Order: sequence, then C-alpha cells, then structure tokens
Amino acid sequence: MALTEETGQETSEFMRQLKAVAARLETRLELILSDGFSAKDARLGEAMRYAVLGGGKRIRPFLLIESASLFAPPTDVVYDVAAALECVHCYSLVHDDLPAMDDDMLRRGRPTVHVAFGEATAILAGDALLTLAFEILARPETHESAEVRAELIMGLARAAGWRGMVKGQALDLAAEGADPTGEEIDRIQALKTGQLIEFACDAGAILGRANGQQREALKTYAQALGRAFQLADDLLDADGDESTLGKAAQKDGAAGKATHVALLGVERAREQLGELEGQAIGALAPFGDDAVILAEAARFVSRRTH
Amino acid sequence: MALTEETGQETSEFMRQLKAVAARLETRLELILSDGFSAKDARLGEAMRYAVLGGGKRIRPFLLIESASLFAPPTDVVYDVAAALECVHCYSLVHDDLPAMDDDMLRRGRPTVHVAFGEATAILAGDALLTLAFEILARPETHESAEVRAELIMGLARAAGWRGMVKGQALDLAAEGADPTGEEIDRIQALKTGQLIEFACDAGAILGRANGQQREALKTYAQALGRAFQLADDLLDADGDESTLGKAAQKDGAAGKATHVALLGVERAREQLGELEGQAIGALAPFGDDAVILAEAARFVSRRTH
Repeated sequence: MALTEETGQETSEFMRQLKAVAARLETRLELILSDGFSAKDARLGEAMRYAVLGGGKRIRPFLLIESASLFAPPTDVVYDVAAALECVHCYSLVHDDLPAMDDDMLRRGRPTVHVAFGEATAILAGDALLTLAFEILARPETHESAEVRAELIMGLARAAGWRGMVKGQALDLAAEGADPTGEEIDRIQALKTGQLIEFACDAGAILGRANGQQREALKTYAQALGRAFQLADDLLDADGDESTLGKAAQKDGAAGKATHVALLGVERAREQLGELEGQAIGALAPFGDDAVILAEAARFVSRRTH
Repeated sequence: MALTEETGQETSEFMRQLKAVAARLETRLELILSDGFSAKDARLGEAMRYAVLGGGKRIRPFLLIESASLFAPPTDVVYDVAAALECVHCYSLVHDDLPAMDDDMLRRGRPTVHVAFGEATAILAGDALLTLAFEILARPETHESAEVRAELIMGLARAAGWRGMVKGQALDLAAEGADPTGEEIDRIQALKTGQLIEFACDAGAILGRANGQQREALKTYAQALGRAFQLADDLLDADGDESTLGKAAQKDGAAGKATHVALLGVERAREQLGELEGQAIGALAPFGDDAVILAEAARFVSRRTH
C-alpha cells in the first residue's frame, strides 16, 4: 500500500519532469527552426516544423537530458544536443512513413508528413532534418570543446547510419513475411530503435565527461531500456486501439511484421518486459539516488499505455 | 597557334590529373564501403556502392583535392574528406532521381538507384550515404584537429542542408512551370549546385589552413565556377543528346524547368559562360602558377561536351 502510493508519487513527479523537459526542448526546437525560409520555400520549412514540433513524448531527448543531469544540471547547450537527436528521430519517422517504406497515413494523431505536404517535400524535409542535426552538433556554440562536438557527431552518425538505424530499417523491410527468428528480431530492433536510445544516454555521458564505469553502466541501462521500449511498443500494437495510439494499430500483424509478441505470445512478452525493466534499473546502481528519474523512465517505458 | 598547342597540352595534363584524382578517390570510397554488410542487408550495401562507385567525373572531390594542394600535397586524409563530399553529392542524386522528385530512370548511362534496387532501398541508401559523410568527417583518423573536423562538418552541413542544397531542390520543385526570373534561377542554382562546389574549395582552404585572403579568393573562384558549371549543364541539356550525356536530354525544357539558356538563348548563355570562366580564373591570381590546375578546371567545366 505504502509502496503503491510512493510509486504513484514518483510517477507523477516523473511525468512532471518528462513534460518539463519536453516543453524546454520544444522551445529550443522552435528557436532553431524559426527562420531562414522565404515565401517560396515556406513549404519545406513548414514540413520540417510539422515533423518536429508539437508532439511526441520526447523520450530520447529526455534520456539524454537525464543522463547528462547525472553529472551537471542541463544547460541550453545540452538541450541543443537533445534537439539534434530529436531531429534525427523525426527524420527517420518521416522517411519510414513514406509510401515506398511503411506507407503510414497517421502519426501522433495527425496525417503523416507526406500526406500533409506531398512526397517530394517529405523526402526533402527528412533530408534537411538529418543534415540539420549535424549542423547543430558542429556549431561552436553547442560546446566549447571541438573534441566533444566531434565525438557526439561520430556517435550520432554511427547510431543513425548504415551500420545502425538505417541498417535496422533495411533489415526490417527484408524480414517482412520472412519468418525471422527471435534472435534476428532482437538484432533488427537493437539497430532500428536501440541505437538512438543508446546514443541518447551515451551523449549524456560524453557531455558529462563520464568515466569508463559510468559510461558502461549507462550503456547497459540504455540497452535494456531500448529492448523494453520496443517490446512495450509491440504489446501496445498487439492490443492497442487506434484512438489511444494516435497511429494505426495492429498494423504489424497485418503487414506480416515479425515482433517478439507474435513469437512469444502476450503473456511471455509481458514477463520479459518486467525482466528488462529490472535489468535497466539494476544497471543504474553506480549512480545511487541520483538516478531515480532514469529508473522511473525505465518503469514508464515498460508500463506506458500509449 | 602556340597558344592553342599550349592549351592542348594543359588540357591533356589536366585530364590526366582529373583521372588520377578520380582513381585514387575510387580506391578510398571502395575501402570505406568495403564491409559491414551481412547477407540480409546486402541490398542496402549494394545500392550504396552502386550509387557512389564506378562513375562520374568527380568534379567536386577534384576541386577539393586541388584547392587543398595549393597548400600541401594531398594525403589519404584529404581524400577521405573528398570521399565524404562525394557521398553527399551522390545521396542528393539518388534522392533527386526518385519518382516523387525528378523521376529519372537513367544516370551516368545506367538505371538510377530506385530503378535498379527499388524505391525503399534508394531512400535508405541516400539516407545512409548522407549520414556516412558526417561519420567520415568526425572520425579522429580523418584529421588530427577536432577543430578542423568540426569546421568541415559545419561547412558541409550548411552547404547541403535546409539553407543550402536541400533548399535549392525545394525551390527548384516550386519553380517548375512558375516562370522564375533570371535572378530567381541564379539563386536556385547557387543553392542547388553552387553550395557543394563552394564547400569543395572551402574544405581545401580549411584543410590547408588558408589565410583570409586566400580563402576569399577560393570562394570567388568557386562561385564563378559553380555558375559556369550549371550554365554548361543547361547548354548541354538544351543541345545534347542522350547517348553522349548518359542521362535523359532536353528534359528541362520538357518539364517546364527554368534555365538560363531558356531565358537568355543559347548565344547569350555561351557568352556568359565565357565571362564566368574568366572571373573564375581571375580570382586565382593570388596563387600564381600554383593554381594552374584549378584554372584548367574552370576551362574544362565551361567547355565540356558531356
């Protein structure tokens, strides 16, 4: 009883924190995307803003901010790094939603970018957001140390690129209807979703100039959290409904997409989710009480209903 | 007569040099793209290699290498920077050729990437090449100074992004059938083609730690050369034939695309091309005889027949 109440309080404090980070991030993104368009290319700017602003739980930026907060209170600069990460995440959604890819019409309860702005503009807006992420990270204003900037850029490029997220998407397309094993699904998801989540925590470690043990702990946390995140997503897709999700539900099954839920069944998938939550929280031990919010994030990710 | 002979010799020396740079670049690109693919995502790797290897005059890398050579003989590291630039150029071709964009079937005499590998893989291969460019530039092996790496990344991201090349492509799409003025065409081409050419020369200046006057001179050269490059391209499109070009000819006129040639007529366009060639070569004065190859490059770009 006492524990439930305590968890309730922690969760509500966590939600407050999650929303506060999202709001401050939104302000940074607004500022970054606030000018530079003429009347003639307003459409590109609008599509970029539409893709990035006004939606999403901002889980990746949150993990970056909270990881960095283990070492020092986050400044606007840390938020700029989080904004760069969110630009990459949003570009990947815009391109993944395209007709030639997952062909999704709905995202965060709104028409997807190519539905709202046309396919050509969606491709360009995605390209522009990906490029912008690296521009943000390379700017001298983003960090006084060029070493830190270059390390962040290399980490993000590796996580997002041909051996990371893009490879995951390519493997995912190849696996459709191909009956992949549980191990193969793990690998696809580790690349497609896990890599950016790992980068989020690693960027916090880089910004905080974490030592090797701390960096490793955050990596273990991020890996478990990334797997939990994907498993929770698959469970939501399996039994969610469209109005709660804000996107098409039960789409994976219909598309013949392989998920752990399809492979393990709902019950076993829920058990595994609990184990991953425990692993993620356990990895935070070196940070003691400082990591209470990251621990809550693991609970939130595993238990979210949308 | 003596002059013609001399020009003939210079041109043949220039062609030798152009081919030597292209061959060494090809080796670097081969190396960079040589591993990291499993059987299951081989298609992505093949599409990336198809998009980047085995074709093209490599004008942008050549300009980068020759600009850097004004200051010191180019090392493999300089070639890696040129490889990153070529990855960005090739990604832009892959995405521009997509059905939703320019819908081109032929490029360098071969089927375009989406024709050969499908649309989804073409989008992903473009995304992967863009991301790879920044990974290459961020690697410590690419330059000992993180300051130099970050400056190159910022320059490339700005040239390629929402205020550079992507903006140019967005404006170009918006201008189709919209009767743009000569000034508007200039602006579109400066963004779409000029920005990467300017970055090529500026990257050479950054790598060579050029002083302000040298950097400015290379900028003036690159701007004139970029305009000449586009004008020559438009002239080739206007009177070229498909077998020489290796891509669809007279496509711009058919698509209602605005070009200077359509606006000025072929004769006046040729005159302007000569003026731009002179401006480009004139800007090289501070480098004296060291810039003989860059001067030849301006002649080559203006006078090429394919």
